[in-house]
Amino acid sequence: MSQPYMFEKPLGLRDTLPQAQQEISRLEMIFQRELQRWGYDFIKTPALEYAETIGRASAIADHRLFKFLDAEGHPVVLRPDMTTPIARIAASSLRQAPLPLRLAYTADLYRSQRKEGGHPSEFEQTGAELIGDATPYADVEVISLMMSLLEKSGLESVRLAVGHVGFVNAFFYDIVKDKNVVERLRNLLYNKNDVGFHEYVATLGLPSDVARQLNTFVDSRRMNNDETLEFLKTVVSGSATPVHSYYRNIIELVHLLKMDHLEGQIDLDITLVPHLSYYTGFVFQGFGGNLGFPVASGGRYDDLLAKFNRPCPATGFGIRLDRLMSAIKTPIDRNAQHKRAVIYNRENAGKAMRFAASEREKGHAVVLQHADGIDNPETFEQQFEAVNYFLERTETSE
Amino acid sequence: MSQPYMFEKPLGLRDTLPQAQQEISRLEMIFQRELQRWGYDFIKTPALEYAETIGRASAIADHRLFKFLDAEGHPVVLRPDMTTPIARIAASSLRQAPLPLRLAYTADLYRSQRKEGGHPSEFEQTGAELIGDATPYADVEVISLMMSLLEKSGLESVRLAVGHVGFVNAFFYDIVKDKNVVERLRNLLYNKNDVGFHEYVATLGLPSDVARQLNTFVDSRRMNNDETLEFLKTVVSGSATPVHSYYRNIIELVHLLKMDHLEGQIDLDITLVPHLSYYTGFVFQGFGGNLGFPVASGGRYDDLLAKFNRPCPATGFGIRLDRLMSAIKTPIDRNAQHKRAVIYNRENAGKAMRFAASEREKGHAVVLQHADGIDNPETFEQQFEAVNYFLERTETSE
Repeated sequence: MSQPYMFEKPLGLRDTLPQAQQEISRLEMIFQRELQRWGYDFIKTPALEYAETIGRASAIADHRLFKFLDAEGHPVVLRPDMTTPIARIAASSLRQAPLPLRLAYTADLYRSQRKEGGHPSEFEQTGAELIGDATPYADVEVISLMMSLLEKSGLESVRLAVGHVGFVNAFFYDIVKDKNVVERLRNLLYNKNDVGFHEYVATLGLPSDVARQLNTFVDSRRMNNDETLEFLKTVVSGSATPVHSYYRNIIELVHLLKMDHLEGQIDLDITLVPHLSYYTGFVFQGFGGNLGFPVASGGRYDDLLAKFNRPCPATGFGIRLDRLMSAIKTPIDRNAQHKRAVIYNRENAGKAMRFAASEREKGHAVVLQHADGIDNPETFEQQFEAVNYFLERTETSE
Repeated sequence: MSQPYMFEKPLGLRDTLPQAQQEISRLEMIFQRELQRWGYDFIKTPALEYAETIGRASAIADHRLFKFLDAEGHPVVLRPDMTTPIARIAASSLRQAPLPLRLAYTADLYRSQRKEGGHPSEFEQTGAELIGDATPYADVEVISLMMSLLEKSGLESVRLAVGHVGFVNAFFYDIVKDKNVVERLRNLLYNKNDVGFHEYVATLGLPSDVARQLNTFVDSRRMNNDETLEFLKTVVSGSATPVHSYYRNIIELVHLLKMDHLEGQIDLDITLVPHLSYYTGFVFQGFGGNLGFPVASGGRYDDLLAKFNRPCPATGFGIRLDRLMSAIKTPIDRNAQHKRAVIYNRENAGKAMRFAASEREKGHAVVLQHADGIDNPETFEQQFEAVNYFLERTETSE
């Protein structure tokens, strides 16, 4: 055991020490309680899945997968997301359950890092999936639920960006009539490369009013919600479905979010294109605590379950606990668990045990410690809010 | 996506569906609360560790490890146990923390299965490690703590078998003076092959009184605690340390467990030899619910931390949640979470949302569902304890 990396972990992997773990545990409990109150049932899936099914359907780039052969020689992956395993379950074990299904999870996800960059290869995520409901009411539910979880976590300045990739795809296709061009435009949006977007539009040889519409579209990122809705109204006027039906869904969503008193925290951003390729409709990202990147994201994925032979609409989201932790400035209750120590000797073992047990029954955290087991009493005792000594010597031993 | 095993999981891996997950979650919460009350701090370690360090130190047979190369070409393993990663942390990140350390975890562990046999490749374990205290008081603490967790889980007929591998090794060595013979005898004990043990003893050419001592030793499995203590007393009389000092520790432990009112549930079984090779002192296994195999096990491992350059005594245990689940006959609170549904239409969306929110604030689990999102109202509604309808039609739309 003299390896130079005896104390090292593989690239991108970390230990979580007590103080951080206490905060994670607090978040997990808040999320679990709230998700149960919204009627979501927790499930769990294996860390390993077959690469040919879950690995491929998950839409995570191959080089980001932890992939290897299992004992039987099948390629397996460490689960890179939870939406795909849940889709597998919805299409198999829960095939007979009444729709819509409301499922939730807290799980570690794995995405391989090729070089040191501070990004974790393993991170914890809590999420919810609402399966079998195609209405915008389902989208509103998961958006409201995600907002509620973020609010209850103690995250400050919670905001949500909402877009619609179905609308983006249909709107672009109506103009350029070429799937490859649509994909290139969408990639430029995903990379927020506005200059590149304008330059690429200029190469397409489009009529100037149509090119202007595309350019205004990408600039709509800086519009407020009313301006965005006004812009959408002008571009869809006279256009055929599906652009128009997506537009109506957007209007309906804004209406419902207003009713749910969330409108003030929502930024309608029609240019929002997340990296996960299975999204088909509304997409959204949650921000807060002045962090520059999203702590949560989600969207509608109406085509994923068909890959498991159960065509079925679905929407959901995931909250990354590692990012949320770094976005929460003043964790609530960080010092909620104050510990007391009971230090005893052999003669007082029974008395000390009874005292510790009764304090624990009252809900207090009590370390029961024989004096002989302590190396350095001073540093040991400093850890505690209070110390009780059971150290009297008696003439007779028990 | 037409693989024959589209819905399959790799060998030994399972999904956990809502009802089972609710029970696991109940156990996790009970364990977390109780471990915190005993002053244990939760930590978390990565799922992947280097094979050369954690993989080797973990004492899990190589063919049971999930082992592969990471992106940098280093052999890594899915963590097969938690004691070894915790030893790594105690010897690195927590090197400066005052001793004794009290650490706890709930984690998934991975042990590869080569053939279908109903054994899981992934299982959840809750455990505790008490690091830096060599006294029998530390052993009593972890034994009492494990008992307390099992009792609070709702497991019936909780019993503990306690042995001492340090005593076994020293006692055998004093007689046969050959480490290989000691190992062979210990293996026969581990496999509970009493006939093989007697046969092997007969081949050793030992004086008949000594051979009889060895044979009585293996038969002591069927003795009650007083008989075992009486037998131990006869075999150690006149013998040198370390056998004698181990014997004194056993006497002290029995004394302390009596004081902790646990004696009636303890079976002193000096032939107990668990498979994990790092144990050096007391070892114990927890049983209950008429299950034929242990739901929990632990012991003292005073040499493990030296492998991480921090020689330090330690003791701890792990409870297997999968086994505990199958041992608990009547889960407590299985139906604690009763759900109500609120079914609404567009006109009543605001009213329904406010009603659901206020019920959730009171702690009730409420599914809020737009009527248009339900395929089959009858089967959908059957899931709930009660259904509230917000479906009135009005002339004017909102």
